[in-house]
Amino acid sequence: MSPRKIGVTEVALRDAHQSLFATRMALEDMVAACDDIDKAGFWSVECWGGATFDACIRFLNEDPWKRLRTFRELMPNSRLQMLLRGQNLLGYRHYEDMVVDKFVEKSKENGMDVFRVFDALNDPRNLERAMTAVKKVGGHAQGTICYTVSPLHDVDGYIKLAGQLLDMGADSIALKDMAALLKPQPAYDIIRGVKDTYGDDVQINVHCHSTTGVTLVTLMKAIEAGADVVDTAISSLSLGPGHNPTESLVEMLEGTGYTTDLDMDRLIKIRDHFKTIRPKYREFESKTLVDTNIFLSQIPGGMLSNMESQLQAQGAGDRIDEVMEEVPRVRAAAGYPPLVTPSSQIVGTQAVFNVLMGSYKVMTAEFADLMLGYYGECIGERDPELIKQAEQQTKKQQITVRPADLLEPEWDTLVSDAEKLEGFDGTDEDVLTNALFPNVAPGFFKTRPDGPKNVGVDPSKQKKRENEPVLEPITYKVSVGGRTQTVHVEPAE
Amino acid sequence: MSPRKIGVTEVALRDAHQSLFATRMALEDMVAACDDIDKAGFWSVECWGGATFDACIRFLNEDPWKRLRTFRELMPNSRLQMLLRGQNLLGYRHYEDMVVDKFVEKSKENGMDVFRVFDALNDPRNLERAMTAVKKVGGHAQGTICYTVSPLHDVDGYIKLAGQLLDMGADSIALKDMAALLKPQPAYDIIRGVKDTYGDDVQINVHCHSTTGVTLVTLMKAIEAGADVVDTAISSLSLGPGHNPTESLVEMLEGTGYTTDLDMDRLIKIRDHFKTIRPKYREFESKTLVDTNIFLSQIPGGMLSNMESQLQAQGAGDRIDEVMEEVPRVRAAAGYPPLVTPSSQIVGTQAVFNVLMGSYKVMTAEFADLMLGYYGECIGERDPELIKQAEQQTKKQQITVRPADLLEPEWDTLVSDAEKLEGFDGTDEDVLTNALFPNVAPGFFKTRPDGPKNVGVDPSKQKKRENEPVLEPITYKVSVGGRTQTVHVEPAE
Repeated sequence: MSPRKIGVTEVALRDAHQSLFATRMALEDMVAACDDIDKAGFWSVECWGGATFDACIRFLNEDPWKRLRTFRELMPNSRLQMLLRGQNLLGYRHYEDMVVDKFVEKSKENGMDVFRVFDALNDPRNLERAMTAVKKVGGHAQGTICYTVSPLHDVDGYIKLAGQLLDMGADSIALKDMAALLKPQPAYDIIRGVKDTYGDDVQINVHCHSTTGVTLVTLMKAIEAGADVVDTAISSLSLGPGHNPTESLVEMLEGTGYTTDLDMDRLIKIRDHFKTIRPKYREFESKTLVDTNIFLSQIPGGMLSNMESQLQAQGAGDRIDEVMEEVPRVRAAAGYPPLVTPSSQIVGTQAVFNVLMGSYKVMTAEFADLMLGYYGECIGERDPELIKQAEQQTKKQQITVRPADLLEPEWDTLVSDAEKLEGFDGTDEDVLTNALFPNVAPGFFKTRPDGPKNVGVDPSKQKKRENEPVLEPITYKVSVGGRTQTVHVEPAE
Repeated sequence: MSPRKIGVTEVALRDAHQSLFATRMALEDMVAACDDIDKAGFWSVECWGGATFDACIRFLNEDPWKRLRTFRELMPNSRLQMLLRGQNLLGYRHYEDMVVDKFVEKSKENGMDVFRVFDALNDPRNLERAMTAVKKVGGHAQGTICYTVSPLHDVDGYIKLAGQLLDMGADSIALKDMAALLKPQPAYDIIRGVKDTYGDDVQINVHCHSTTGVTLVTLMKAIEAGADVVDTAISSLSLGPGHNPTESLVEMLEGTGYTTDLDMDRLIKIRDHFKTIRPKYREFESKTLVDTNIFLSQIPGGMLSNMESQLQAQGAGDRIDEVMEEVPRVRAAAGYPPLVTPSSQIVGTQAVFNVLMGSYKVMTAEFADLMLGYYGECIGERDPELIKQAEQQTKKQQITVRPADLLEPEWDTLVSDAEKLEGFDGTDEDVLTNALFPNVAPGFFKTRPDGPKNVGVDPSKQKKRENEPVLEPITYKVSVGGRTQTVHVEPAE
């Protein structure tokens, strides 16, 4: 019997550098690898969405739509894939449905194929409009389960959620493990459960980060359970808070009943390319190699360092242990949201406030909104006392409807907002860019003509800085032959 | 049914730092972790042998026997484990049997429990005497299979080799994957095969490096196949060319039919300790994060960099590809030895010579010895033409007996050699130290009274060097107002 073919999604162009060096990779550092990526035999190439849109205009003076069109041109044979935060699109608020439609339509038009749609709270209502929009334009709508661990989350719940996504018309289901919490056995049980319940032809994609060091085993068990596609990153952009290495996955399957059919010669070229690129971004690189604390604390690394800096800013750096004990209580009070952007920040900040000022003496506006349902529904019930307090504080009512149902049509306003901006190019794409990042886009539109900015630093120059003497401007008193002179010295170039 | 308990060998104190930073860790950087290691519930603690003995006297001015006694004292509840190169002991030649007996006896006396005995060529005759010696002194004799890949190596061959080791009286079998070549499926097949052939009560220990990124999956499959004990390193001393993280193994098994019963609180303390230690040895640290080239080339990373520097020394750095193509041919001519110290160096150097000077125009003395059987037997036949050439060149005859059979009793000579040395303390341990490293021990005996030397560098001092301006002494000619003076400037402190 010939081995079952496992699809692979290569994440080098999106999540790998987002996780490893703060989404800073410039398009010009990717183009040389695109031909090999296009022809290596991946099921899809994740290359857009997530934080890349924000990073493009905030740090790289790069038009994200142009980046997408470039990928489309350079990888004509590939399914391009993006990560989309449901009703939030790529921004940080809920958008009215027509904006969602428009964004999806324009993304498809510029070259996108596979839309991985998720919601931080796993509230299916926050996915529905985006999924429908994707299907309407003929894209691949991938419904996403954010995996987390809590007293209320169990295998059956995830299987049920998969069913809701399929009812929505999902072309495939993604099991998304952003914190590397997904252990081999639950991965097996969830995937087997989904297949047993809804049929073996339901396509399941598995996305694990590698932070805890466990998840290549998770991918193995996922494959044994029937997973169809798994996400990996080429080895030179892998591991740490990133993903498992693509080549290791290929080799791992040798002799088993599974194969990837990836072209190893191409993989080696891709690897060698990014091997030269990664050192340029060392300044932004995460220091984490492996961290199994997440299993014990349920607190992802990014959330922990965030709380630590909040405490330090208040001169209370020594109270991190109290905060770490408070986090599970806050999370329980909020109905056990997964801890992922933005819920991780909302829960973490409230925990810090509780420790510093007393339990819910001060409630942040975001936590109040979370308690009132303005981010959607969580798996658990929310604390009724805190809901009351949130209502009093914000003068808003708790809602049970889908948050976006409360929004008025806003497309026309967004268009006229954009039209006022210097450098606005008149396209719907620019309207969307400004809609997503109204604080950043106006500056970007102005500087766009200057062209992309590469924030990577040539490793040879970094090396120079590390190993060679550096002469900083300095003033000496120099005494020669009994006479003292003040001499100022600084580098001539 | 309660889960099956999997034993764990913690390698932090030996192979982890040998693989990650050239065996440079000083005993004083280990002692604080020993109590937690002792009580965490490991099956054994690998802490001695391999390259540690050499490194102790060559770089650290540390008496390796004293190191062993210290471990014994600090970890009274643990099985201490060492790696022993069969008839080579810890040195680089074959020793006469009585020296082997003596070394094993003294190791046991100083505190050793588990002797993992291996031979680079997998020639059982090179293990037999050491195994017998271990059993005679009541130690645990672990017979080792060095895992490699070649057209002649297959699952059945490894199963047969395991049988030979069991016939020798092995208390357990180690499957040693020093190059991270062992993929999940062959691991499963070999272990299942050994258990099926010789009984489920045969203890199998699995040792994998993590270089290729695949081998935590290998450990999972090994466990499913029935492996009893697996080797890992605490996470802060893990990954890269080292080993899979201990904590990740523990977490990986949750919910499966297996458990480690390790004490996670202790593991965290051990981890936190070595987290502060590892940065001290940054200077020695390997840059490899993950490398799957080994699967394609069969050439381990250390061997490759060795050949590269040999080529560069000859101004032929651009010919590495030719050498890499030559290696498999040389290895085939030698009967497919595993590529591990010293066979990797012998094969690699001969490949370099062949490329630079023509095929076997020059044969190294070591390669000639390998061809003549002076290292033992390989799995395959050796090229008869090259055997003839080796005989002519060396004026020696091919041998088929066990190499150590040709050695005369040498203990008395070794004693009198040692007695001539300044600083010799009169013990058998010192005789053995000098026997193993006759070029290094004399110097060590002299400097021993100065006490151990820690070659680690405080990270805060390293940081200073990287980020702060460095002013090196410099002499300027300074011209001011038409007059030239020579000015020497150097840091004031």
